[in-house]
Amino acid sequence: MPLVNIRITREGVSAKQKQQLIAGVTQLLVDVLGKNPATTVVIIDEVDTDNWGIGGQTITMQRAIEKNQP
Amino acid sequence: MPLVNIRITREGVSAKQKQQLIAGVTQLLVDVLGKNPATTVVIIDEVDTDNWGIGGQTITMQRAIEKNQP
Amino acid sequence: MPLVNIRITREGVSAKQKQQLIAGVTQLLVDVLGKNPATTVVIIDEVDTDNWGIGGQTITMQRAIEKNQP
Amino acid sequence: MPLVNIRITREGVSAKQKQQLIAGVTQLLVDVLGKNPATTVVIIDEVDTDNWGIGGQTITMQRAIEKNQP
Amino acid sequence: MPLVNIRITREGVSAKQKQQLIAGVTQLLVDVLGKNPATTVVIIDEVDTDNWGIGGQTITMQRAIEKNQP
Amino acid sequence: MPLVNIRITREGVSAKQKQQLIAGVTQLLVDVLGKNPATTVVIIDEVDTDNWGIGGQTITMQRAIEKNQP
Repeated sequence: MPLVNIRITREGVSAKQKQQLIAGVTQLLVDVLGKNPATTVVIIDEVDTDNWGIGGQTITMQRAIEKNQP
Repeated sequence: MPLVNIRITREGVSAKQKQQLIAGVTQLLVDVLGKNPATTVVIIDEVDTDNWGIGGQTITMQRAIEKNQP
Repeated sequence: MPLVNIRITREGVSAKQKQQLIAGVTQLLVDVLGKNPATTVVIIDEVDTDNWGIGGQTITMQRAIEKNQP
Repeated sequence: MPLVNIRITREGVSAKQKQQLIAGVTQLLVDVLGKNPATTVVIIDEVDTDNWGIGGQTITMQRAIEKNQP
Repeated sequence: MPLVNIRITREGVSAKQKQQLIAGVTQLLVDVLGKNPATTVVIIDEVDTDNWGIGGQTITMQRAIEKNQP
Repeated sequence: MPLVNIRITREGVSAKQKQQLIAGVTQLLVDVLGKNPATTVVIIDEVDTDNWGIGGQTITMQRAIEKNQP
């Protein structure tokens, strides 16, 4: 019955990787807490890099700075 | 003042159905808790079937399996 | 499979009222979207009035003002 | 280390405004709580006006009513 | 930079189990997506069984029914 | 109408600081987006340090390590 919400930036995560995340976190809840995998829900939110900030700056700006560094 | 967040898979919910969900859940909070409908907020998140997992599998995979069953 | 999160202030909601909210919103999702009630999850978060603000003011402060009004 | 989630309607917020929100809320957490800005995360969710309800009505419907008022 | 939110019922999860969940899900994001563990945040919410419903019923009620079954 | 959710560790934030956070973020949404403060909602979630992880470790463990450093 656990719910897991994974929030990541929208930067080309494939359907296969999403499936791996969902399978992996479901198994983790079985292993650590003995939860029933059949009712474990995992939702992945992909967030635009303009809409995600860390250190007071959007990820879009940080990616641009990283790109310009030698 | 209550906040309600409804998360469903993105599978063709119409604007009319969204309106029915919002009206229905707002009325429920009036009926059960006596909340003021004017300040009751309802947000519906539609999530891609690739991004929603249950039982360790994405909904996309489950829909494909269901389709292939006789 | 839908998930519903209801956030309300912590002001003495009874176990019976919580049960009514959960039953009511689950039925609404059956009626409007034809969702399976067996996998519909509803989580109620109760939030202290010090931790909830509207109009730039905590609910604690607003309740105090309301109380002092004739 | 704080996390901030800002949910607004999707109505043409610019990248510059998003940057201002992220910078402003990060600074607020430094000023009020002395938090480290380097690990402060801000995520902005833009929600379609069909998917946001207040007073039992979608914002889409409310915008239409406002437009028709003299 | 990913954020993970794990919501489970409040039923005696130990500090050691929480640590295992946090370490496990952080490693999963490294393995599947190559994310930086240093900025991966995991938050565990424990929810009272009165406040969690599935199948239109609180977990409290479901635990009571299970207990009475032979 | 915006909603803001601030999640911080539960480490002695005062009612006054919460009021400052709520007032500050509400004003920010007025200044940057011209939002109506009367319908701006801010919710602060305080999370136990056992339930918050970063870098694969709970904050409880990190605080203990910091304390033991000369």
